[in-house]
Amino acid sequence: MTDLAPVLDSADTNLEASLGRLFELIRIRSVSTDPAFKAECRKAAEWLVRELTALGFDASVRDTPGHPMVVAHHDGATPDAPHVLFYGHYDVQPVDPIELWETDPFEPSLKEEAGRKVITGRGTSDDKGQLMTFVEACRAYKQVNGNLPCRVTILFEGEEESGSPSLKPFLTANAEELKADCALVCDTGMWDRETPAISSSLRGLVGEEVTVIAASRDLHSGMYGGAAANPIRILTSILAGLHDETGRVTLPGFYDGVEETPDDVKASWARLAGNDKDFLGDVGLSLPSGEKGRSILELIWARPTAEINGIVGGYTGEGFKTVIAAKASAKISFRLVGQQDPAAIRESFRAYVQSKIPADCKVEFHEHGGSPAIHLPYDSALLQKAKEGLSREWPKPAVVIGMGGSIPIVGDFQKMLGMESLLIGYAQSDDRIHSPNEKYDLVSYHKGIRSWIRVLDALA
Amino acid sequence: MTDLAPVLDSADTNLEASLGRLFELIRIRSVSTDPAFKAECRKAAEWLVRELTALGFDASVRDTPGHPMVVAHHDGATPDAPHVLFYGHYDVQPVDPIELWETDPFEPSLKEEAGRKVITGRGTSDDKGQLMTFVEACRAYKQVNGNLPCRVTILFEGEEESGSPSLKPFLTANAEELKADCALVCDTGMWDRETPAISSSLRGLVGEEVTVIAASRDLHSGMYGGAAANPIRILTSILAGLHDETGRVTLPGFYDGVEETPDDVKASWARLAGNDKDFLGDVGLSLPSGEKGRSILELIWARPTAEINGIVGGYTGEGFKTVIAAKASAKISFRLVGQQDPAAIRESFRAYVQSKIPADCKVEFHEHGGSPAIHLPYDSALLQKAKEGLSREWPKPAVVIGMGGSIPIVGDFQKMLGMESLLIGYAQSDDRIHSPNEKYDLVSYHKGIRSWIRVLDALA
Repeated sequence: MTDLAPVLDSADTNLEASLGRLFELIRIRSVSTDPAFKAECRKAAEWLVRELTALGFDASVRDTPGHPMVVAHHDGATPDAPHVLFYGHYDVQPVDPIELWETDPFEPSLKEEAGRKVITGRGTSDDKGQLMTFVEACRAYKQVNGNLPCRVTILFEGEEESGSPSLKPFLTANAEELKADCALVCDTGMWDRETPAISSSLRGLVGEEVTVIAASRDLHSGMYGGAAANPIRILTSILAGLHDETGRVTLPGFYDGVEETPDDVKASWARLAGNDKDFLGDVGLSLPSGEKGRSILELIWARPTAEINGIVGGYTGEGFKTVIAAKASAKISFRLVGQQDPAAIRESFRAYVQSKIPADCKVEFHEHGGSPAIHLPYDSALLQKAKEGLSREWPKPAVVIGMGGSIPIVGDFQKMLGMESLLIGYAQSDDRIHSPNEKYDLVSYHKGIRSWIRVLDALA
Repeated sequence: MTDLAPVLDSADTNLEASLGRLFELIRIRSVSTDPAFKAECRKAAEWLVRELTALGFDASVRDTPGHPMVVAHHDGATPDAPHVLFYGHYDVQPVDPIELWETDPFEPSLKEEAGRKVITGRGTSDDKGQLMTFVEACRAYKQVNGNLPCRVTILFEGEEESGSPSLKPFLTANAEELKADCALVCDTGMWDRETPAISSSLRGLVGEEVTVIAASRDLHSGMYGGAAANPIRILTSILAGLHDETGRVTLPGFYDGVEETPDDVKASWARLAGNDKDFLGDVGLSLPSGEKGRSILELIWARPTAEINGIVGGYTGEGFKTVIAAKASAKISFRLVGQQDPAAIRESFRAYVQSKIPADCKVEFHEHGGSPAIHLPYDSALLQKAKEGLSREWPKPAVVIGMGGSIPIVGDFQKMLGMESLLIGYAQSDDRIHSPNEKYDLVSYHKGIRSWIRVLDALA
């Protein structure tokens, strides 16, 4: 570990210049979903390549069937320095409805908001501001030390906001070039204003649709009620049996591969627990609904679930119809953690359902996707080092959190490049990404740059 | 009990003439739903009044805002003879699609069908042929004995096929005139070709719609799954808890007022049990789904049920959406028997549901009707007498059966006139009522007349 003070000082001293560079990038209207902005997307890629080349990267615009990628390489200070792949995206969301913007989305400015200085404009938070924190961290390093502490490969995408159609083919075609010891993905947020976060896990998913079929036609419930099988009753009984009274999923083998969260991780989540109430309170709820004896954060980050996402059967219109439906169906998803095997869970679910179907009824299944959980081990050295680096920068220590929503790139890096990802970002929950008046806190930008300096140093 | 042989002989001797009278009635195009046939409906009522007057009834056409009623009175042989109210309807269903009729629907004929003689035409079975069995039985009695064994009031309606809008006001306005010891309703069928049936009970109904409301908006199941209440899971758990593993309904007090079916009744149903398999087999099923240890006939005629008639929540379209719905709802109906109290059952259901709703969720209820079961006690003297009368006429003894579907007139007689009904009819399940080529077996007509002679005699 080197003396970082001069590097951090450099970042501080050059903040205004680095803001100027960010403003230049924001002025480029790189809206990826709108073909009218195709040239602007390329312009953003070219701008980035120029900046990176100036910093000593071997950088190039790489064509794809869609908008181009930017790939750049830089050696580390020593031959055995770790190799990181940094990912961000230069494309932005459309700006409609334009009339709701208080400033020009493509003419960035600094303004005061709720006592804080914020950078306004489309892409300030998602993701131009975030990716530039890394570029500027590299700049400060180079300026002071003439090199980077890690070997760095940069991948900037220009189609993240339009479904990344070119990404998988590009990863496949350039796997050797892009493979690194780990990926750093800068497209997420802080836990709160004082607490940086590393998202180290994403839950997996098994989607199933089940249809219970009883009689050959809808029946009159007066004439047949009590004698004929009711598929809604069979289905609700099956679904009700998925959980026991402690909230655990009852499927045999369901918890195979699920590990307990280490105490220190749980303790760090417990320190965040004051926010539990707000998490549910924001949506009008107050009681955790999952497995008993576990915190909300543990439930959503580290525990698997079975959720019924939809159900339909019989008469659902206005009024009443005394019908016994011929069939009823439900969509169920399982969120997976740890080493849970999607195929085994699907099989266990189907066997359970089948065992509950009366001999004169039938069941049909439809598969709706399956993917394992993605998880950086809590004791991963990379994770610990990044955490220490971040913790030195912010008022409160960094927390390792999970993510509910999926970030496809993380799965792609794991599947196609065999590489884990550290998701680190400095966005705030009030950044209004994808909406009018997107902003990025000046503190996020400034301390974001300083954070990457510390993280790169820690990883080295 | 008088010597019935001469009366029955008279019915036999006059069969051809009585068929001629039925044909006259069938030729009258009394389609109640079509205003074009308004005059024909009145013509049918007037024809019936003429026939009944000729038989010595005090008969009259009674105007209503719709089609007229026919009311007729005749004294019994003795002052203490029981008083019966006979109900039938002279209106018929439309004949469309007319091109599917093999004979003119309003030009009745006798033809051979599957080795049986049948009377063809609209209304032959529903309900002109049936009501004429009673009129002709009265004729035979009068011809031989000069009187009727019971005091008889006849009520013929002309709006049964169009929702009986005038019936309740008419019953209210003429309650004293129409009240009798019991009603005889001739609008139902035989159990099979050899076995006459008395429908002595109709199950009651409680309809409820329940909506479970959790979060204030739909949630992402990745972000909230495992922490936020899922209203579909709550609802399916509630619905699954309505039955125990023996198929009994679990609501406290649900079986209050439910009496066991007497052994002799069960035995008579057991003799019909060969038909169980067909009952379910006809709709692609084979296993009784209700309370264990009870026959299908007992389940549908004499046991209460809880059925889920509809359920909906979350995403139910094509594909998959990882949503936790804000709400989910179901329509549930309870079929009641014996003295079950609809209000008490609704209350018990709501209390049960409420007890299962987490403190941070809500539930809403909507009432969809409630009516008690209608039930003539199995040991009712009237029922036993009618049964004995019928049993003497047909190859197999009469059976007392229940009805799943509701017949509103029976409830109206009970509520508005305080009078139980015996539902006796001679229709066959292949009579194609409401469809093209409606027919009534000649045996139904002939032995129907003879049956009423025996029933009236038995009741007296």
